[in-house]
Amino acid sequence: MKLFSSVNDVKDVPALVAEALQLKKDPFAFQHLGKNKTLSLVFLNPSLRTRMSTQKAGANLGMNVIVLNIDKEGWALELRDGVIMNGTTVEHIREAAGVMGEYSDIIGVRSFPGLKDRDEDYSETIFNKFVEFCKVPVVSLESATRHPLQSLADLVTIEELKTVSRPKVVLTWAPHIKPLPQAVPNSFAEWMCKADVDFTIAHPAGYGLCADFTNSAIITHNQDEAIKDADFIYVKNWSAYEPYGAITGGNEDWMLNNDKLKIAPKAKIMHCLPVRRDLELSSEILDGPQSVVIHEAGNRVWAAQAVLKQMLEVL
Amino acid sequence: MKLFSSVNDVKDVPALVAEALQLKKDPFAFQHLGKNKTLSLVFLNPSLRTRMSTQKAGANLGMNVIVLNIDKEGWALELRDGVIMNGTTVEHIREAAGVMGEYSDIIGVRSFPGLKDRDEDYSETIFNKFVEFCKVPVVSLESATRHPLQSLADLVTIEELKTVSRPKVVLTWAPHIKPLPQAVPNSFAEWMCKADVDFTIAHPAGYGLCADFTNSAIITHNQDEAIKDADFIYVKNWSAYEPYGAITGGNEDWMLNNDKLKIAPKAKIMHCLPVRRDLELSSEILDGPQSVVIHEAGNRVWAAQAVLKQMLEVL
Amino acid sequence: MKLFSSVNDVKDVPALVAEALQLKKDPFAFQHLGKNKTLSLVFLNPSLRTRMSTQKAGANLGMNVIVLNIDKEGWALELRDGVIMNGTTVEHIREAAGVMGEYSDIIGVRSFPGLKDRDEDYSETIFNKFVEFCKVPVVSLESATRHPLQSLADLVTIEELKTVSRPKVVLTWAPHIKPLPQAVPNSFAEWMCKADVDFTIAHPAGYGLCADFTNSAIITHNQDEAIKDADFIYVKNWSAYEPYGAITGGNEDWMLNNDKLKIAPKAKIMHCLPVRRDLELSSEILDGPQSVVIHEAGNRVWAAQAVLKQMLEVL
Repeated sequence: MKLFSSVNDVKDVPALVAEALQLKKDPFAFQHLGKNKTLSLVFLNPSLRTRMSTQKAGANLGMNVIVLNIDKEGWALELRDGVIMNGTTVEHIREAAGVMGEYSDIIGVRSFPGLKDRDEDYSETIFNKFVEFCKVPVVSLESATRHPLQSLADLVTIEELKTVSRPKVVLTWAPHIKPLPQAVPNSFAEWMCKADVDFTIAHPAGYGLCADFTNSAIITHNQDEAIKDADFIYVKNWSAYEPYGAITGGNEDWMLNNDKLKIAPKAKIMHCLPVRRDLELSSEILDGPQSVVIHEAGNRVWAAQAVLKQMLEVL
Repeated sequence: MKLFSSVNDVKDVPALVAEALQLKKDPFAFQHLGKNKTLSLVFLNPSLRTRMSTQKAGANLGMNVIVLNIDKEGWALELRDGVIMNGTTVEHIREAAGVMGEYSDIIGVRSFPGLKDRDEDYSETIFNKFVEFCKVPVVSLESATRHPLQSLADLVTIEELKTVSRPKVVLTWAPHIKPLPQAVPNSFAEWMCKADVDFTIAHPAGYGLCADFTNSAIITHNQDEAIKDADFIYVKNWSAYEPYGAITGGNEDWMLNNDKLKIAPKAKIMHCLPVRRDLELSSEILDGPQSVVIHEAGNRVWAAQAVLKQMLEVL
Repeated sequence: MKLFSSVNDVKDVPALVAEALQLKKDPFAFQHLGKNKTLSLVFLNPSLRTRMSTQKAGANLGMNVIVLNIDKEGWALELRDGVIMNGTTVEHIREAAGVMGEYSDIIGVRSFPGLKDRDEDYSETIFNKFVEFCKVPVVSLESATRHPLQSLADLVTIEELKTVSRPKVVLTWAPHIKPLPQAVPNSFAEWMCKADVDFTIAHPAGYGLCADFTNSAIITHNQDEAIKDADFIYVKNWSAYEPYGAITGGNEDWMLNNDKLKIAPKAKIMHCLPVRRDLELSSEILDGPQSVVIHEAGNRVWAAQAVLKQMLEVL
């Protein structure tokens, strides 16, 4: 693999999931692959799970890992072409990415969307420029519109914990107080559409995702109907795709609680984290037997390690 | 060892001190213990010595070390239960610690007290919640009320440098301009009370430490009497325990200088650092032959390494 | 080597360049030298290339690398002697450097000039105090007046890419909107004066560098004359040496573009980066065939590795 930016970069999704689960059993079997290879993890935005799990995945593979919080340790990058750089940006992404490529065998990049200009965010300018100019394999650590390492870990978790061959998986919108990106739900949707699951998306009117990511999903505004008898319920807030980045009040009743879960007694509750307790998801669920959110976060290591391994194999 | 939060977690204090001194002689003898083990060092507050010495101790033991300044690289954590998270905190410590535990074999945590609410600080809420939710062995990198790695390094230093079998050790309060935590003096006091030393604490009226930490110590308001013929003088400022966090002026004469040291000509001068020169401790002492503060800081490596080794042995 | 602060610390410049080029061919041949050795990289100012390339160089040599952004992860350092530390500085450089030395076999330090007080900057107080108090070998990661790892990488690049035995090398001033240090041009000048090149410096009136660094260079205010038929053109802005730190407008025509380069058709264009596009240097040059800036940045690894190797050999 030379690029991991979406499910479309994966030739064989079930094989990648199987590889992740195999690495979970035997994490240190491939340290020869990463020996004397440098993995640079470049963050333009904060991170906890992605940072730690990918750093650990690289180390498990024997790699030298460099973490750079460029927003804090470095300086502001210019992303636009054709501008005279006489403002606050100190370095152009052409040079910054090019130089990082000189020091790295593989680069991971995180960059959040601005949520102001939909065309700009959905064109994935920053991520794509990084890929273009660094000239080495790149792993998305979450970009403006996708979070594929999260979605791979989610699919690994479903594969690991499912009790029926084709589980019912539901992505349900959850309340929040701030406008959040659509990256996690977009990505989860496009991975589920390629997985052997029955996939439903439930959200209030006005929160429809971009259709490019949801093509084979059932979409409903009825949360109860959606989650009934689900095997997995993926909880996540996102802001509107149209008007872009908007949030509207009045949907507080979309927060799952134990009462709502009575119609989904077998359902395992997933969330990418961080989660705001009792706003997005009730504490009683998070602390109860149906939550698998910590286990799911743990699987981030094996997802990252499977991707890095496939990249190292073709370096 | 599964937890290192205070001297009470140590079964055999002299054996731990001996282990630290042995590791100082032969730092790399136990790299097999840490191979493919991950040590995560999580800082909610700044650090220089603790960060560098513990990172080095982990590397000496062959561990993969992840450093996370969660206050800067991550986001604000919610510590309270039962609140709707619709404010500025992004993630609850239950999830944050739980997830870090998934990625770590051992975790080190630093979290300073607020110095506003004594009950809250002395209940060690943050540290204890971290321990509870991460579910892996935890080393305190300084908590609200204790700094045990510092105290172990201090005892190692005393053991290493003492010229009599039972030295006279004095902890003396020093002036400062800001209210500082009681963690270092609390911890030093409880370690000295368990060590084979004559232990005296000297401080101005109003700066008495919590009695839980000082049970067998001689306590005096007379600095001269305390330091007379001392073998080791430990200099440190702290704010009042009662009223909690208060500082009062007028004790500038508690700063040690060479004139005062005439009655303690053999005394080795210790300080945990950072030290404010000519406010807490005179430059003439810090730059003179009686100061052992740099040597003491160097011993932080062996203290951390001894603790980590004992944790690795029972993983 | 015990100190790398300027070209004057290098006994045999051509041998060091040759060593860097040899390490580029065989990067991992000397991992035994760095095994169980700690390299601490201490940043008082931001960094991208220096941070990543030196971290990688240390890892290539088998070293354990600790990165500390002391301005962000730690606290403000006091640099002056004889002051009562009752202000905002938390620790004196005497203790901070001394302690870091305890944890490190080699230390790299970055500290920019204030550009207010020339005598203070040119006396290299911070860097020299660091060297004095840490008591281990120190590599400059850019100090107030020099950036020797950059200059070594520059010379390595010239040696690698030159097509004549004694190339014509030109350092040309470039426009900027902020006062920048003289460290890179000072350092480049003193390295070129020791190299087997024809060296010319071109700058507008008022931007003369300190003569200590430029002794054998031809200095001119005529950029066209300078760059004519050059083999290498090094582009860099700097603020005035006299009056110190000043910038004056009206020299925008000093920015190189393809039209200007017609008289230097073979010239390879160098810049230490970061570069402000279309302010310091035109995009058409940076994206064109004459630019070697990314390649030059890549050579930072081998420059750092050659210096670290020579230090490790005499530890």
